Parts: sequence; structure tokens; C-alpha cells
Amino acid sequence: MKKFLNDPDNLLPESLHGFVRAHQNLLRVNFNPTFVFRRDAPRQSKVAIISGGGSGHEPLHAGLVGPGMLDAACPGEVFTSPTPDQMLAAAQQVDSGAGVLFIVKNYSGDVMNFEMAAEMYSGSQASVLTNDDVAVEDSTFTTGRRGVAGTLVVEKIVGAAAEQGANLDRCCALAQRVNARSASMGVALTSCTVPAAGKPTFEIAEHEIEMGVGIHGEPGKKRMPLVSADELAAQLLQPIVDALELTSSDEVLLLVNGFGATPMMELSLMFECVGRLLDGRQVTICRSLLGNYVTSLDMAGCSITVTKLDPEMRELWDAPVHTAALRWGR
Amino acid sequence: MKKFLNDPDNLLPESLHGFVRAHQNLLRVNFNPTFVFRRDAPRQSKVAIISGGGSGHEPLHAGLVGPGMLDAACPGEVFTSPTPDQMLAAAQQVDSGAGVLFIVKNYSGDVMNFEMAAEMYSGSQASVLTNDDVAVEDSTFTTGRRGVAGTLVVEKIVGAAAEQGANLDRCCALAQRVNARSASMGVALTSCTVPAAGKPTFEIAEHEIEMGVGIHGEPGKKRMPLVSADELAAQLLQPIVDALELTSSDEVLLLVNGFGATPMMELSLMFECVGRLLDGRQVTICRSLLGNYVTSLDMAGCSITVTKLDPEMRELWDAPVHTAALRWGR
Repeated sequence: MKKFLNDPDNLLPESLHGFVRAHQNLLRVNFNPTFVFRRDAPRQSKVAIISGGGSGHEPLHAGLVGPGMLDAACPGEVFTSPTPDQMLAAAQQVDSGAGVLFIVKNYSGDVMNFEMAAEMYSGSQASVLTNDDVAVEDSTFTTGRRGVAGTLVVEKIVGAAAEQGANLDRCCALAQRVNARSASMGVALTSCTVPAAGKPTFEIAEHEIEMGVGIHGEPGKKRMPLVSADELAAQLLQPIVDALELTSSDEVLLLVNGFGATPMMELSLMFECVGRLLDGRQVTICRSLLGNYVTSLDMAGCSITVTKLDPEMRELWDAPVHTAALRWGR
Repeated sequence: MKKFLNDPDNLLPESLHGFVRAHQNLLRVNFNPTFVFRRDAPRQSKVAIISGGGSGHEPLHAGLVGPGMLDAACPGEVFTSPTPDQMLAAAQQVDSGAGVLFIVKNYSGDVMNFEMAAEMYSGSQASVLTNDDVAVEDSTFTTGRRGVAGTLVVEKIVGAAAEQGANLDRCCALAQRVNARSASMGVALTSCTVPAAGKPTFEIAEHEIEMGVGIHGEPGKKRMPLVSADELAAQLLQPIVDALELTSSDEVLLLVNGFGATPMMELSLMFECVGRLLDGRQVTICRSLLGNYVTSLDMAGCSITVTKLDPEMRELWDAPVHTAALRWGR
């Protein structure tokens, strides 16, 4: 293992210090318990949106904290759920009294710890589970489908609604709707290496890929030989089309997401391959996102996320956002 | 080699199609000859800023095309200079009559081909060479110092000036000033694999790193064992401090740039390590950039760039920009 590292036990706080140092006009960080939050929080009369999860998926979630998106993010150790005291302290810090919506990727540890935090929190709160990964049901760490890159879409759209004054009930219903209209599937070309473990999370042969991989390297649908980008795109897209029942009248957001070690040229190629397939189905890509947003440390690979947009969701996607990783509008 | 790929000979056009598809409100692409340009070009009375170079460094340069930055980018094949007809056609497409500034990274092939394009172009034009890499003089592909991530800083600041109406002479002088006040140095933990070659560009042992590496995997100052992130930061920063003669009164832009396969947690850690060293020297980091901007395909590693800002440069850095990779302001 070759990594930039001082002490593996200090990687998380040191990297958070660095990340917040690079974005100090936008973010602050608290330690013991650990969370990253909007410098201008709490925002009066605004529902606070809080997410979190194991580290190693950066820029998710701390890179999505800021006006128009998250109020706080609670990072656990690498690939490890944050603890309830983190979410509780974050809620106490950023809630102005309008309540808190917790956005939780569906992994058993995260679900349990966010539930405990919600029980401990004395203010109004609600939780939404994201489970956009259509590759497998019931995998390592998860009962039911996993929450992956579609979580970013939920966070963006609900973050915009909260910024515009939507109340807790509306934010919660919207998050559920976006999640239900999003589907993702990923493929890994390589494993990833957790710094504290020092060796790859799983073994994979040269010329072999993991179709339907999870963002922690969990097994997917199958091991198979590497095939062309066009063929991979078809195999990634078909289960998404099926799950969303995509038809030729649909307008979608297409997110092609890198897992961390795949060059932009290859991600752009995958965007093109998926785009051609959607063209062939007369599905309109009306919004796009391309890059490394929900990563798996140094894994080579990518995921495809499709969200079926409706006019309200599209408008909220377009609303201003100012975070480290997503930034547009005023 | 495991890569997302159809035909290696078509990777460049297919990936450009995908990149422009994902950014279609912003960009257009021309083929035969190949260049990416602002959808709204040519802009009346505005000096056109054109850059380019071998592919494999994405998002540089096509990801930096848009209002406030480049008017066009000319991508060569991977790690291969674009040909003069590309720069000539781009200039003809985007020049409104106010002239063209070519920003050229200092590699012998690029320098020669941009010079030929400049000679062939009938309009007003000037060229600036970037050579911010302080690691080595006279390396593979280069006479003198190499142009690396500091090129992005030049493109941002000069792009802002051009957008505000600066004439060709002023853009050229400003580009030279920013380049002279920028210094970079990189380190590789791994090699990178050019898709058409199918094997790593160089061999490097486990636990060994290349200090001062170039962005095509060119040799740097030395091979050495991997040391702590703090020690690496110190070794990367010292030659930059020396070259810029940084003192405690200086205000700088710090860019910590990933080479493509290094997780954000590790880049954030490196930002923190360099930040602490600058703190210790009472150098103020007044602007920051952290992420994968000038990559080397799938190389693990990073570079540090420091630019000594003056008030005008800082104001131009803050000016609005709207590109795929950098976006802020109105």
C-alpha cells in the first residue's frame, strides 16, 4: 500500500482539517464529536438537512455541505458508520427550530446509528433512507437495496427545497420521491485499499470486473471478464431502465460517477456510451453530472445513476448551490 | 490494463463527445481538426484565450473552457501535442478580431506546434509559455522547466482579465507575471497507463516514490522510499519556497492537485500538511484550490502549486468563472 499518510489513526481528523482549511469561507468542523457544518448555520426558519456515513466516499458528504444543500455532514471512520453522538451534536448545532431531516444511505450500521440519534434528539426530526442501488438486494452491510450515488441527487434537490423554505414534512416527502425515482448501478475494475487495513478490500483478477459492486467493495451481481465500454454501459443501464420503467417520454438526470481512480477521459467515454443508449430509447438527458462524487477511495470503476425528473425536481436541481463539490447559480 | 474502452483509437473523440454532451449548455466540439470551444464564441471585442496539449490531464484544458477562462482548448492524443491545424482552426473559430493569446505548457512538441500555428494565423496573436515546475531543468520532452498545474492559475487569471476587456498586450504581460509568480512540484506514488500502450509508462517498486515527477510520468529529482505525508509536504514545498523567495509577508494561492487516482481524503491531508508548513512560515493562504485538476491519467500522486498573489491577481482569481471544472461568481 502506498498512500499519503501520517498516522492512519489520524487520517480522518487531519484530512477534515485540510478540507475545511481549503474551504474556510464555507465550512467549519467540530471534533469530539466530529461533524462538518455550514459556517452560517443555523439558518433561521430553515429545515436543517444532515447526512453522513463512513468516510472514503469524498466529496460525499462533507463536500456537499453549504447553501442549497446540506447543513451538516457526519463522517465516520473509513467505511464505518458515524456514531449517534455525531448526528445528535450536528443537529443541535445547525437546527434553528424548523426541524432536521436526516438523509441516510441504507446500510445497517448507518440506519441503526441515525435511528439512535433521532431518538435522542429533542427537536423535530425525520429520516429518509436512500436505496438507489438496483444491483442487489441484501448484501454485505445491508438489508434491502444499498444507498449509493443517487443520495447526492436527493441531497441536492431536498437541499434546494429547504433553502426555499419547505417545511419538514415537504422535505421528507420530496426526499422519498427523489429516491424512488432514482436508480444506480456500478462496476469495479479494481479493489480499494482502506488505509488502516493496508491491503485491498477484495481480490480481483486482471481482466476481471465486479458488475454491480457496492461503494465499499461489496460483491455485486457477478464477476465477469472485462468487456467493451459500450457493452458495460448496456449492462449497467438495463437494470436501471427496468427499475425506473423508463419510456421514451421521460426526461432524466444522468450522473456518471467515478469511484476515485478512473481518469476523466474514461468517465467521459462512459457518459457517451450511456448517452447513446438513452438516445436510442428516446429518453432525454435534460440534466447531467459527470465526475468523481461518490467514491470508494482508490477504486477504479464507475456508477451510473438515472433520476426521472419532473418539473419541480428539475427546478430544484437548477436552484443555486454553493458547496465544495457542486456549485452553480447565484 | 483494465480500462473503460471501446477502440483505443477512438477514445479521444468518444470521450470528447461525452464530455461535451455532459456540458452542452457551455461547450461545443469540432472534429477534423479537433478543438473544444465556448458555445457563445466568438465574443465581440474580447481577446480569445486558447490553450491545449496532450490529453490525459483532464479536466485541463477542455474542462477550463467557458466564460471567464478559456475560449477554446485543443486536445492532442494522450500525452501527445496537438497539431498546428487544431490551434489554427480554433483561433479562426473563436477570435472576434481582438486577437488570440495562446497559453502553452513548456514541452518541446507543444512549443513547436503552437509556434507553427501562430505563424500560420493571420490575425493578431501572442503566446505565453508556462514553466512552473521547479523539480527539474531539461527533462524528457522539455528544454527548461516544465509547465504543469500552475498553467491552470495562469488560465484563470488571464481568462478573467480578457473577459473584463483587457487587450492582447495586457493579457500577455499578465500571463507572464502569473507564471513567474507560480511554482509547482509533484510526487508520484504509482505510474500511469496510456490506453494505447496498454502498460505502465514507467516501473516503480512498492514503497518507492518518484519525487519531482512530471505529469507524463517523466523522471523527477529522485527515487526514494515513501515517507510520511508531513515529510513529503516539506520536500515538495521547500523548492517552491526557494524559487518564489516566499517570505512571511506573502499572500498566496495554494493549489493541491491530484494526479487522478489519489483519494480526496489523502489530498485533503496533503493540503493540511502544506498548510501547517506555510502557517509556520507566516505565509498566508488567502486562496485555495483542492482536487483533481491537472491529472496524469490514473497516476496516484499529487502536486503542490503556490502562486504569490498581488491585489490585481487576487481580484481576477475571484472574478466569475463558468467552466466544467471551475465555477463561481455570477
